[in-house]
Amino acid sequence: MKYIKAVGFDQHLPIENPESFQDIKIDTPEAHGHDLLVRVDGVSVNPVDTFVRKSGRKNRLSKPKIIGWDSVGVVIDAGEDVTLFNKGDRVWYAGDFTRSGSNAQNQLVDERIVGFAPKNLTDEQAVAVPLVGLTAYESLFEKLGIDWTGNENKTLLIINGAGGVGSIAIQLAKLAGLTVIATASRDNSISWAKKMGADYVINHHQDLVSQVKHLNTKYVDYILNLNNLDAHWNEISELIKPDGQIVATTENHRLIDLQKLTKKRATFAWEWMYSKSYFKTETMISQNKILNHLSQLYVDNDLLPIHTISYPVINASNMRKAHADVETGSMIGKVVLTSWEK
Amino acid sequence: MKYIKAVGFDQHLPIENPESFQDIKIDTPEAHGHDLLVRVDGVSVNPVDTFVRKSGRKNRLSKPKIIGWDSVGVVIDAGEDVTLFNKGDRVWYAGDFTRSGSNAQNQLVDERIVGFAPKNLTDEQAVAVPLVGLTAYESLFEKLGIDWTGNENKTLLIINGAGGVGSIAIQLAKLAGLTVIATASRDNSISWAKKMGADYVINHHQDLVSQVKHLNTKYVDYILNLNNLDAHWNEISELIKPDGQIVATTENHRLIDLQKLTKKRATFAWEWMYSKSYFKTETMISQNKILNHLSQLYVDNDLLPIHTISYPVINASNMRKAHADVETGSMIGKVVLTSWEK
Repeated sequence: MKYIKAVGFDQHLPIENPESFQDIKIDTPEAHGHDLLVRVDGVSVNPVDTFVRKSGRKNRLSKPKIIGWDSVGVVIDAGEDVTLFNKGDRVWYAGDFTRSGSNAQNQLVDERIVGFAPKNLTDEQAVAVPLVGLTAYESLFEKLGIDWTGNENKTLLIINGAGGVGSIAIQLAKLAGLTVIATASRDNSISWAKKMGADYVINHHQDLVSQVKHLNTKYVDYILNLNNLDAHWNEISELIKPDGQIVATTENHRLIDLQKLTKKRATFAWEWMYSKSYFKTETMISQNKILNHLSQLYVDNDLLPIHTISYPVINASNMRKAHADVETGSMIGKVVLTSWEK
Repeated sequence: MKYIKAVGFDQHLPIENPESFQDIKIDTPEAHGHDLLVRVDGVSVNPVDTFVRKSGRKNRLSKPKIIGWDSVGVVIDAGEDVTLFNKGDRVWYAGDFTRSGSNAQNQLVDERIVGFAPKNLTDEQAVAVPLVGLTAYESLFEKLGIDWTGNENKTLLIINGAGGVGSIAIQLAKLAGLTVIATASRDNSISWAKKMGADYVINHHQDLVSQVKHLNTKYVDYILNLNNLDAHWNEISELIKPDGQIVATTENHRLIDLQKLTKKRATFAWEWMYSKSYFKTETMISQNKILNHLSQLYVDNDLLPIHTISYPVINASNMRKAHADVETGSMIGKVVLTSWEK
């Protein structure tokens, strides 16, 4: 097979436009170095996908762009330096921001950011996890510096608990023994956050400070912000405990009043899952370990699946639907696409 | 002795005004709980002293205010809950932001933020250290999370290396095995930073990015900012390595463009030495341990003294001179005052 199917675009268009994604054919890429060639069996759509599709210059691209980060599939070839995987291994990964994406039948990916997919999960279940799993895991255990034990008296506030990252973050934080306060605003997102294990759910459209106080909590030890840092900054600086730690995954749009944290000498960190592969850091291989750890947690039935919408074929039509789902801004859990048409 | 001498003020005045400090007499305070009553033998002046003296409303205070944080002296009485010290112990400390200061012959201080003064240092040498020592130590080992070993390939950039905090921070970072790039701009501050142990000294009035590049370094692992965060923010975000950590001790005046750190997922933390006692955190007693550790490092001749100007009597006249020294904004090391007139 020389040509493979893919879903791409050559113009940054609104998702309502039928041209916003197109079914295309591309050459099969070749694996060299640390690269695996993966047969992609499932993909999922994250907010980053819609951001990249919408953003960018208005003129037509010289060749179609293929995005997509989450992937589950099987290794069909490997570069000469590969040591972690063999042909036939079923893998999952969230990819590299700078490379051609997973919305293609075959994709190249550096083995150091790939893990073994959990054997007890279907493609639909598995592919919902890598990007949000890496983000949640790195946020909690690298950026907030949380240990896996000894958190009985520690509280984590997750702002936007029912989205993809929130769904995994609630579960991981509960496994680590933290008390979790998550925010959600609609009946079904509140139920979802509770199902994921949140001890308390409060409403992010109302004042967070008074709602947290109502739980007999003045300060929280950690805050994971997953939505609109600008809107929540004042509440975050009031609620974080002295010496506390804040991590955020969403880009903000305004300048930030850092002075609000001075007296508390609090710490603020960004989490960007792509950072390690983007800068080719020495710690890049940690994503292999994290994905394998998440896999083991699923095998041990310690984590619940998080996909809520599933499209049975990966093609331009379904990709437009999945992007439209994410663009509502009110996704609960994740949307996934699996299988290619014969 | 019922009345004791002190140096205070009842108006927030420019330091040129002879009324900006006055020699006064106050009642001897009584020690209760965890408080020690200390006979103050030496004090030093930090930027926080001049900030508090200058700031505040213009009307006359109802009673004189006594500031001053650094202190070296001898325990002369102890509250009923004191367990760490005995009468006669020679101690050093940097005090509590919310309580009456060290510019008095006797002062109350919570034992948990006090350490034993190093036996081999004079009062002049010792009293220069507590506030800047705690700030440097907490910045490096708590906020930047640096370990004492394993830093052979790690580089720390200290912006403003020749001031009080910089002088100790350079030395502590060298003891921990880091490569230290410090900034200074005048011949004598450059020599001082080198004497403190800096491997490289660059000029903070010129572009830091190109100067660091000139040292064959693209990114630094850690940045300790001790001067004008607003002016240096762009350079800091360019120079910090991916996943790197930044700590700052000076309040900034403008809003901060945090987005500059997003892709690198870098961490920013404030250090404010007073935070633990201000919020009465459980970790407050760590300042006792840090001061004792700094004391041991001096006893072992691992640290150099950092005072550069010394006034032989603690009184209003000398306090005005010492504040004027700090207000030049170009202090190298520290200014201290020791002994009371009989």
